[in-house]
Amino acid sequence: MSSIFTRIIQGEIPSYKVAEDEHFYAFLDINPLTKGHTLVVPKVEVDYIFDLDDKTIGEMMIFAKKIANKIKQRFPCKKVAMVVLGLEVPHAHIHLIPMNDESDIDFHKPKLHLSEEEFKAICQALQ
Amino acid sequence: MSSIFTRIIQGEIPSYKVAEDEHFYAFLDINPLTKGHTLVVPKVEVDYIFDLDDKTIGEMMIFAKKIANKIKQRFPCKKVAMVVLGLEVPHAHIHLIPMNDESDIDFHKPKLHLSEEEFKAICQALQ
Repeated sequence: MSSIFTRIIQGEIPSYKVAEDEHFYAFLDINPLTKGHTLVVPKVEVDYIFDLDDKTIGEMMIFAKKIANKIKQRFPCKKVAMVVLGLEVPHAHIHLIPMNDESDIDFHKPKLHLSEEEFKAICQALQ
Repeated sequence: MSSIFTRIIQGEIPSYKVAEDEHFYAFLDINPLTKGHTLVVPKVEVDYIFDLDDKTIGEMMIFAKKIANKIKQRFPCKKVAMVVLGLEVPHAHIHLIPMNDESDIDFHKPKLHLSEEEFKAICQALQ
């Protein structure tokens, strides 16, 4: 059984895709903490990010940097936070979250509820 | 005026050093969320992690992976979380935090208060 992220990458489950290359895929978190909250995942299905080989984890960070810079350009913020927890979905993923205050990065607070139009507009801004 | 992390790297301010190479430095967070909570910093003094050049940010991740794997080996946990916020100290740093539950990664909860002996023991376990 493939992970939900593999099914997203393969197009079985729709997503708001921001970017993709041979090894990585970036798409909007549908339960965002702030507007522009994006997930970066490796196409290889590995649960724990630190189990990725050196080459892949290094390249994943460079891919994430490109996305983070685009997020900051389109959704002005102090910084884009990077968070990897990984206890829910067993497929390594980096959260990139536009942040103006540390309280923005609280996974226990209510998530934003955005309309499909809002998600599409955010997605287009980041593509 | 050098950042507090540059002063730590240069030995002007003492730290519980876990590892060091030509470009990166890892040491215990003195306000840990869990035992083994470690900071990884680049020796180059850059405020925002995504302003690092591609080569450096990729190598930083590979360095962090080595530390994370050592942390998980010595401080058994479900995963080692990775968090970069960066609104307090203007010198890029990755938090590596042994985690058994997402509630472990709450920067607003009271930090652990460890004795010098406890810090030394944790540090030796990770070296």
